[in-house]
Amino acid sequence: MNERLLLDHLLVRGPASRADLAKITGLSKPTVSAALAGMEDSGLVHLAGEVLGRPGPVTSLYDVTAGAAHIGAVDIGRDWIRVAVADLRGRFVGRKDGRNAAKNSEDLVSRVRELAQAAAGQAGLPWTSVITAVVGSPGVYDKDADRMIFAPNLPGWEGSGLGDRLRTALGVDVTIENDINLAALGEHAYGAGHGIANFALVSIGTGVGMGIVVNGELYVGARGAAGEVSFLPAPEPVPADDDTLRHGLTESLAAAPGVVRAARAAGLHLDTAKEVFTAAAEGDPAALEVVHAEGRRIGGLIVAVASVLDPELVVLTGGVGHNLALLGDAITSRFAELGPLRPRVVASTLGDSGVLLGAVARALSQAWDHIFDLRQSGVQPRQSGVQYGMSR
Amino acid sequence: MNERLLLDHLLVRGPASRADLAKITGLSKPTVSAALAGMEDSGLVHLAGEVLGRPGPVTSLYDVTAGAAHIGAVDIGRDWIRVAVADLRGRFVGRKDGRNAAKNSEDLVSRVRELAQAAAGQAGLPWTSVITAVVGSPGVYDKDADRMIFAPNLPGWEGSGLGDRLRTALGVDVTIENDINLAALGEHAYGAGHGIANFALVSIGTGVGMGIVVNGELYVGARGAAGEVSFLPAPEPVPADDDTLRHGLTESLAAAPGVVRAARAAGLHLDTAKEVFTAAAEGDPAALEVVHAEGRRIGGLIVAVASVLDPELVVLTGGVGHNLALLGDAITSRFAELGPLRPRVVASTLGDSGVLLGAVARALSQAWDHIFDLRQSGVQPRQSGVQYGMSR
Repeated sequence: MNERLLLDHLLVRGPASRADLAKITGLSKPTVSAALAGMEDSGLVHLAGEVLGRPGPVTSLYDVTAGAAHIGAVDIGRDWIRVAVADLRGRFVGRKDGRNAAKNSEDLVSRVRELAQAAAGQAGLPWTSVITAVVGSPGVYDKDADRMIFAPNLPGWEGSGLGDRLRTALGVDVTIENDINLAALGEHAYGAGHGIANFALVSIGTGVGMGIVVNGELYVGARGAAGEVSFLPAPEPVPADDDTLRHGLTESLAAAPGVVRAARAAGLHLDTAKEVFTAAAEGDPAALEVVHAEGRRIGGLIVAVASVLDPELVVLTGGVGHNLALLGDAITSRFAELGPLRPRVVASTLGDSGVLLGAVARALSQAWDHIFDLRQSGVQPRQSGVQYGMSR
Repeated sequence: MNERLLLDHLLVRGPASRADLAKITGLSKPTVSAALAGMEDSGLVHLAGEVLGRPGPVTSLYDVTAGAAHIGAVDIGRDWIRVAVADLRGRFVGRKDGRNAAKNSEDLVSRVRELAQAAAGQAGLPWTSVITAVVGSPGVYDKDADRMIFAPNLPGWEGSGLGDRLRTALGVDVTIENDINLAALGEHAYGAGHGIANFALVSIGTGVGMGIVVNGELYVGARGAAGEVSFLPAPEPVPADDDTLRHGLTESLAAAPGVVRAARAAGLHLDTAKEVFTAAAEGDPAALEVVHAEGRRIGGLIVAVASVLDPELVVLTGGVGHNLALLGDAITSRFAELGPLRPRVVASTLGDSGVLLGAVARALSQAWDHIFDLRQSGVQPRQSGVQYGMSR
């Protein structure tokens, strides 16, 4: 426990001396020295420098050895699969993004495996040096049934045994979490939500989703389905067929395919939401109208979220949602039509790394648990970290 | 701290022996004995009986002296004002309900004072024996400005200095909280939400509101406006005049006045939502249709809440909402139109006492803080509790 405490402080503050660490943690200097020596032997911390030019004995500075172990982060989306390998400071040391052309979940899992090995290779590491991986996917992971639910955008993804297949393919402990929940963790750790106790991340892209942080922690609800705002009732008419019901009325209207459908209905010959936003940015009046209608939908969605949660901040992300500059006026005018609620809205600045960064944040806390479990059972790691890898 | 721990256990478990208390709390028997003796001297606990017929020395049972102090609970609604005085076990010892005919906030505050004194009188106590009071009111209390916001149903209630006026009128420390938030606390302490970590209480009556319990605690959001679902966008057309905006589109459609409006539009000559539900219960086809449309609105509202929060349970209450037997089918059929979410819905069983019971739960925790502060500053209460009263 003392080691964990010291590591947490080194991770947050950077290099520190034994005396600094004793002062911050309240531990005695001999306790700090013994814990640091043990971790130094294991390669988890190292001497990072010395403070010179002061009277008295030389002060040694200790730091976490970022490369002592590595973690994996995976973001599975309908169009893209992204894999990153990060060190113990959460820095990406390798990353590979690839198109998702999988027609079933077997294809998808083997594509993830390929990209994982490529990402590790980019860092000059074997994938087996990764000690734990966190996978983000659309939908809600049902642990008991080992399957995703509410994931209509990924073919075959709702079948059972998903976690087992990913664990076998990656040869490592795997945690599955809703992608937008991870993106919210990413914003909390590295983005617009940093230091904010209560906020919501709303993602509008291929699908519609939301991640919620309450009191600084991810809130996932009773069955992990909190933030499934694709199922919000919609104020516009929408055909109530099976497909609409599976996706949710709000997703059917507001996600990228809905934008493309609206653009075509307005006579625009465009194939993607991105093209619609580009046309609007260039001043095309029909595209501007489609974007305005989309902004009003998003404004209504944000008011619905604010009326339930009263978040300090709403962070918008996703292929559609990140276009806040074009959507902002329509969002604000919709707020005015719906009453006095005026939630603060900003666009995410994490680009296409939001889910990966959240996966890194989640994986890091698991990695430390894993490392300390190994140390307690007597396994002594060396500097490279490779020996933390689990063989299966 | 030891005294507080022992009291908490006595409150939850009822009478207990020194040996039992030592075992449960992990405190030593001499510590438990000393703490009990101190509290017995102060009148906070008393000898409640003895366990006889066992070998060895007689075992004394201690219990909390419920009447050692009293707390006040106030529920201010548009039509009714209710005041209860409760003992330290949370039992009502006096209660007075009166019509709210106040035309401004001064009238309202003096009406609260009259009812408070009448409620205390019913218990044979002066109101000054109350050591703290919790007041529930529609709207969101803005502490900095000392005023309510989002409280359009109470004339003059949004003016500043509200807390000061209530404190002066009641001569006691007053906490103001949204009424539906208190009702959620009441459900958690004494009702359908007992033992449930994540649930929402949806109230449809004069207005529309929601209280949220997350991880066993009230969740009020960044500015105390969580659960203001009166402002949910509505899927039906509604005139966007100033009054509608102040009340919110969902409240304008779904609260009692909306039900009456819909009934009149259907040719029914009825004046209250209660009459509409009575007519529906008697089989009147037009009233049944109005109730069905109302159930669909409530179903949509519940799906919106579920898509954001994924609560374990939704508790319905309020003059309109408590009619779950009549509304249930329409609610369920609306769920099916909106996708796969099927939140569990039950009607509150706390009747018109929900807000008062929540105020009692909140006031009790404050009362104990208050009592221990007094004890630490050397004030020694006697059995009657009167001397806890604050003079102003």
